[in-house]
Amino acid sequence: MLSSRISRPVCLVGLGLIGGSLLRDLVAAGDTAYGYNRSTSGARKAVSEGYDVSDDLPRVLRRAEEDNALIVVAVPMFAVGAVLDQIAEYAPSCGISDVVSVKWEVYAEIRKRGMEARYVGGHPMAGTSESGWNASRKGLFERATWAITYDYADQQQEKGQPIDAGWIELFTDVVRMASATGAEAIPARVVNHDHAVARVSHLPHLMALALSVTGDNGGILAQSLAAGSFKDATRVAGTNPELIQAMCETNSVALSEALEEAIELLAEAHDTLSQDPPSIRELAVAGNRARRRLEARTGARRESVSPVKISSRPVLRFHPGSPGWVNQLRQTESTGGRMEIF
Amino acid sequence: MLSSRISRPVCLVGLGLIGGSLLRDLVAAGDTAYGYNRSTSGARKAVSEGYDVSDDLPRVLRRAEEDNALIVVAVPMFAVGAVLDQIAEYAPSCGISDVVSVKWEVYAEIRKRGMEARYVGGHPMAGTSESGWNASRKGLFERATWAITYDYADQQQEKGQPIDAGWIELFTDVVRMASATGAEAIPARVVNHDHAVARVSHLPHLMALALSVTGDNGGILAQSLAAGSFKDATRVAGTNPELIQAMCETNSVALSEALEEAIELLAEAHDTLSQDPPSIRELAVAGNRARRRLEARTGARRESVSPVKISSRPVLRFHPGSPGWVNQLRQTESTGGRMEIF
Repeated sequence: MLSSRISRPVCLVGLGLIGGSLLRDLVAAGDTAYGYNRSTSGARKAVSEGYDVSDDLPRVLRRAEEDNALIVVAVPMFAVGAVLDQIAEYAPSCGISDVVSVKWEVYAEIRKRGMEARYVGGHPMAGTSESGWNASRKGLFERATWAITYDYADQQQEKGQPIDAGWIELFTDVVRMASATGAEAIPARVVNHDHAVARVSHLPHLMALALSVTGDNGGILAQSLAAGSFKDATRVAGTNPELIQAMCETNSVALSEALEEAIELLAEAHDTLSQDPPSIRELAVAGNRARRRLEARTGARRESVSPVKISSRPVLRFHPGSPGWVNQLRQTESTGGRMEIF
Repeated sequence: MLSSRISRPVCLVGLGLIGGSLLRDLVAAGDTAYGYNRSTSGARKAVSEGYDVSDDLPRVLRRAEEDNALIVVAVPMFAVGAVLDQIAEYAPSCGISDVVSVKWEVYAEIRKRGMEARYVGGHPMAGTSESGWNASRKGLFERATWAITYDYADQQQEKGQPIDAGWIELFTDVVRMASATGAEAIPARVVNHDHAVARVSHLPHLMALALSVTGDNGGILAQSLAAGSFKDATRVAGTNPELIQAMCETNSVALSEALEEAIELLAEAHDTLSQDPPSIRELAVAGNRARRRLEARTGARRESVSPVKISSRPVLRFHPGSPGWVNQLRQTESTGGRMEIF
């Protein structure tokens, strides 16, 4: 059961790996999508590939305002505030989403400008260690998860206040946009999202970096002997270090907590490894059990021999705005479930 | 320039993932190879696939003695001593190699039995998180590295003693065997090997285990959001925990040292991440640089668009036993280079 189409054009601000791939997917799906790229040469490259792209942000935003587009902010965190200011000026009535990997800082910028009722945050959990338009490609989000925030609705309900009808339509379109790329749309409030990705996205980057350095310290023989497990484990350390910094440093509180847990586990293993006889049994058993749980949850999707792709995530099929729907989102969030709109 | 064929049959003791894959490769290359599997059903399975396999170890070893086979010990570390005792009894003049991932403990067992002059250790750096004959497959070692020890020759030279001609032939055949599987043969003395793999193989297992537990502690939403980077980073935590323990615990001294370095890097990152403003710049820059060095060294082999597979490792083409050859091995080892015999 596929969700129906997005009800409005999509305007992408920023056409790097994520924004560029999203533009390609939307156009391929037959949706109207256009965008802005800061770099003139990048914009030209996209135009030469047949995409509707400009390097003139005010012009692109005025057009978005005219056709009531959904604006997706796909720039690095440090540029988000400035882009929101431009949106406030040139596209004051458009709905806004984004693809930034940490959500609280974006939400702080949104709140600062009183844009809560026109914002639905997003974070597609996909990527490579490459960046820029040239790294973008169709199908990047296929079967990835796409976290979608709903803090405005959650808070309105807490306060006993009505939820703006425009926000409900915006939320619906953001879920449809994620679905259009083949991703699974997962509801997640800002704080919960940031705590989760600290563990499954940002911490892996820190571990990969530390492992890269420690392996490198082993000298040329160690590097020469490095096989698949080392390469896989350090792959994300190849990402532009400024992007890694941006992700990790904007999520420092949640990441710090997760990192502390990981250090403690490693320190305990170090203690028992230094005993006579050496042992790492506790970590080996606990880690293997945790990994198998992960496989049980997601393995079927990846390794199934069946040509039909079946998600292992529980699904919520719902109609945004119907009675009890915000509670349904909370329930789905707590089980890591996905949303399908009918 | 391919090395020529192994001069004798190969007898595999143990037909799990590594031993089984080696048997398949050697038979496919047209070499004579046969083996022993402890499990009767496993042996039957191999026989039903057309392989020359028995579950009777004394019989297999007597045959090896008769046709002067190269015996490759491919059992877990805890079983190595018992297998060597059987070899001493039933195949007292055969050359011996092995595929165990830590070399000093095997070498201790070899020394205990005075077998140094008939032993050349090996460690193919390949594997999956699966184990057993059913997990074995042809081509597992293609383009992997295969560490090959030469401590006996190194020590004889140190002592100004001659190197046994039989040992030189054995070393030659072990290099040829590795080459026959498509692997790159890398000379590495026992201690250097163990220090290197502590960093690039055993430490990644500990990191993967700790990361799996920390991710799992994030609950269902975190698991649901876990994407490629987390799955790649934790893949090896899916290995049988007893195998991980065996590897890590037998290499506890070198691993402990590497683990301490990694913990220190992470603890420093934790400190700077908790400052205001938070920063992980030092680790991000150092880790990225280290990872890029690794890519520069091995990337070309993996990602080349050329159909011709070119190794990025320096090559030593040599004739074992020729003047200065042990020094050539030391030199090659220090640059992580590979060997080709002519």
